[in-house]
Amino acid sequence: MTIAANLIRNIPDFPKPGILFRDITPLLNNPDAFSQVIDELADATSRYRFSRIAGIESRGFIFGAPLSLKLGVGFVPIRKPGKLPARVLREEYSLEYGTNAIEMHADALTRGESVLVIDDLLATGGTAAAACRLVERAGGIVAACAFVIELAVLEGRKALEGREVVSLITY
Amino acid sequence: MTIAANLIRNIPDFPKPGILFRDITPLLNNPDAFSQVIDELADATSRYRFSRIAGIESRGFIFGAPLSLKLGVGFVPIRKPGKLPARVLREEYSLEYGTNAIEMHADALTRGESVLVIDDLLATGGTAAAACRLVERAGGIVAACAFVIELAVLEGRKALEGREVVSLITY
Repeated sequence: MTIAANLIRNIPDFPKPGILFRDITPLLNNPDAFSQVIDELADATSRYRFSRIAGIESRGFIFGAPLSLKLGVGFVPIRKPGKLPARVLREEYSLEYGTNAIEMHADALTRGESVLVIDDLLATGGTAAAACRLVERAGGIVAACAFVIELAVLEGRKALEGREVVSLITY
Repeated sequence: MTIAANLIRNIPDFPKPGILFRDITPLLNNPDAFSQVIDELADATSRYRFSRIAGIESRGFIFGAPLSLKLGVGFVPIRKPGKLPARVLREEYSLEYGTNAIEMHADALTRGESVLVIDDLLATGGTAAAACRLVERAGGIVAACAFVIELAVLEGRKALEGREVVSLITY
């Protein structure tokens, strides 16, 4: 993970003062590093069995779509409210102030199907936990949650307790 | 394009009455069809030379990221306002009522670099035209604009007049 990790750029005070933002755009702009990340996500999740990847809008799409093609499994977008056109399931999650929500098509999964949930970054885990609940309400089984980056100090694994969690780079 | 085109689902009256929404989620959920679309995007753009793909948030990420990996070129996200952490360029475009904007990192491109702009769907072309202006303001050259779906009646090619435009499926 050396190439890719060196291409994550630290941006201080974004989105607000005191937050150090881990910017993956230089990594995406380097095809060798981007490809390495997809390969390593495939390796890190190879011990789980799943037939769908659910990617969380929108940076989860950037990693989830290529991984689903590499592994030959379907890709299911989990989106912000109001974006998916057919019947949806919705789950809310808490923010520092207030709540937010994500949605998945109610017919996206076959009952009993195993799903890998993917996002670029594990912070507090609220969004990923909501994504897991969506998968389960749609009849699926969460095989694991995968992230490129994990911010360990925010203890996102606690929000995903009892679930399999993999990440490639931990800060 | 038969497999993939058959997996685009028509959802009437979304996002508002009278609009027939072309839903790509069944296509994404079928790995053979999704893979076919990426292969056909590679074929359709093979006559252009470019070293970067700029994908428009968020469905442009789903096609642009895999295509950039397949072709071994960098991926540049064009995002909704306030999402990119470093210095950005911004372009506005008109909606039916009011305006919207998209942003790209100011340092995303090297001067003179050729870029493929990609999104899932060409409608009125306002967003894609704004994306092209961003690429050019960042010092790049737009090699072409590529779309999975083109809604011909909305005349998006007029907004992109003088530019190379490719699409796989036209309604």
